Amino acid sequence: MAPPRARPRRATIFDVAAEAHVSRGTVSRMLNEEPYVSDAAREAIEKAIAKVGYVRNMAARNLATQRSKAIALIVHEPHSVFLEDPNIGAILLGTNDRLSEADYQLVCLIIGSDRDSSRIADYLRGGFVDGAVIVSAREDDPITDAIAHIGLPAVFVGHPFSAAGMPYVGIDNRSAAHDITRELRATGRTRIGMIAAALDRDSGSERLAGFRDAMGDDFDETLVVDFPLYSHRSGVEGMTELLARAGDIDGVFAASDAVAAGAMDVLRAHGRSVPGDVGIVGFDDSNWAVRCQPPLSTVRQPADLLGREAASMVLELVNGMTPETPGRILPTEIMLRGSA
Amino acid sequence: MAPPRARPRRATIFDVAAEAHVSRGTVSRMLNEEPYVSDAAREAIEKAIAKVGYVRNMAARNLATQRSKAIALIVHEPHSVFLEDPNIGAILLGTNDRLSEADYQLVCLIIGSDRDSSRIADYLRGGFVDGAVIVSAREDDPITDAIAHIGLPAVFVGHPFSAAGMPYVGIDNRSAAHDITRELRATGRTRIGMIAAALDRDSGSERLAGFRDAMGDDFDETLVVDFPLYSHRSGVEGMTELLARAGDIDGVFAASDAVAAGAMDVLRAHGRSVPGDVGIVGFDDSNWAVRCQPPLSTVRQPADLLGREAASMVLELVNGMTPETPGRILPTEIMLRGSA
Repeated sequence: MAPPRARPRRATIFDVAAEAHVSRGTVSRMLNEEPYVSDAAREAIEKAIAKVGYVRNMAARNLATQRSKAIALIVHEPHSVFLEDPNIGAILLGTNDRLSEADYQLVCLIIGSDRDSSRIADYLRGGFVDGAVIVSAREDDPITDAIAHIGLPAVFVGHPFSAAGMPYVGIDNRSAAHDITRELRATGRTRIGMIAAALDRDSGSERLAGFRDAMGDDFDETLVVDFPLYSHRSGVEGMTELLARAGDIDGVFAASDAVAAGAMDVLRAHGRSVPGDVGIVGFDDSNWAVRCQPPLSTVRQPADLLGREAASMVLELVNGMTPETPGRILPTEIMLRGSA
Repeated sequence: MAPPRARPRRATIFDVAAEAHVSRGTVSRMLNEEPYVSDAAREAIEKAIAKVGYVRNMAARNLATQRSKAIALIVHEPHSVFLEDPNIGAILLGTNDRLSEADYQLVCLIIGSDRDSSRIADYLRGGFVDGAVIVSAREDDPITDAIAHIGLPAVFVGHPFSAAGMPYVGIDNRSAAHDITRELRATGRTRIGMIAAALDRDSGSERLAGFRDAMGDDFDETLVVDFPLYSHRSGVEGMTELLARAGDIDGVFAASDAVAAGAMDVLRAHGRSVPGDVGIVGFDDSNWAVRCQPPLSTVRQPADLLGREAASMVLELVNGMTPETPGRILPTEIMLRGSA
């Protein structure tokens, strides 16, 4: 790059004041529609604005109203999952659509490191946004504490224990996991395991609890493996481990569709047919599910509606409404396809 | 929701002024480290800040410096592609990492509708961000005009003609498409078609040009189909059409890996083997490529580095540097796997 040179500078309120021969305070009062601006000053300021090409700084106007008309969507995911989880994109788009209808700007902030966490806390504190939607928070996530401390209107997608009492929108992971496991049992399988994931999140721990509920007395903890992430790789490693532990395994509940896809790749490599030798069910009904061979039986969660509902709730909070109940639970649906 | 009630209000500069018995202007001068604040006023203001719990509004401070320390990443994609294209996520994460190192906040803005376009133009004009990175702009994209008009420091990922003269970072789509097509020809195929996509973008039109270059006198336009989006669905529809036009087709260059995956699903359904009956190559080296059966021969584009480089360039612009050349081209790599 060449050495710095002057770029054209945007005209400021100071330029307007100098041109109009009035004080900056007078320009500010007029722009904020406050009283005590003479007609003569008003006319001089209007001419000066046109002459210097001043464009109102929205951030400045927002300071007066204490409103930015922007809402943050905070995504806390490691890189691998961010790239493979279609739910995050669907939540993002649902939130964007709803906020757009209300003329609010969605600003998506990514937490990829501790450095990001602390800078984002400053950003939230800084008046750039009126509220926040938080996706995939972990238990004891520092951003949850920061939001509680700042007092920013915020809605969680999902329901971490550490955010108890804060508004959220989610699904009933436990009963949905119970129901899909029951479907798997109904196919006559007797040696059923689970590849669990993300037990540090409400969704992950509840899916395991639902599996345990459905297995009842037949629950066998040696047939449960768990991994930190809802990822294809967790499925690959988990299925490899389950086959090593129990060569006669005939059913698997994978904690997400990506996990199920990884497990199916391992079964294929081991010459086990799905659903002939091993039945598999997943969770999400994402793109993964319909592109598996065979297509995956799974739980549909309404990711775009979770985003829309979270957006509606945060707009209500921003406008001073108080939720009658802290959380809203959206329905899920069992999708039976060919994998079990 | 219950009727509105008062929420705890954040303390403002007015509260500080009232508590300290000084004017708002005096508080402002002190916070901005301007002169003309007496020691007595300074002490009173410091006590008042502590008492009322005032936290400095960053947006206010930024007004003084005309810096927000935030950079927008603008993604213009229809929903279907946003959810299936891992490149966008990789560019986003690369940009976020580089900006984070420089203590800048990335704010990702999604264009999903015309309404979004015009609101985002207002946002960019409004002083909320110091610069922007634009991903997947189309020819004559309104946001490109808006950015040129605002004079905001901006870097494009890719190089739309309508952004001629604006800084960009990209790859040489034409020569990469030429090279992967040449590899496909080298396997001895003679009836080679292309499923082109996104011809309204530089990447899409250049990939078609590169295919044409490599085919030379053997280029047959009846073996080229094109679709608006780089999507799995384009691959499904494109392969179906190509098989209808030419049952003896034995090679396909798909404009992206997602397109190639769709084409492979159709070939499987028609009982054609890959690479036995038909050789397929793609473009991107995304997650799609390694999970196809067989894994896909493709062009690797360094999506995360494109994001990092775009972030570096926009930071240079924000700091008043002028690029010596308007564009930077990053290298691609041919990845040969089992599909051709």
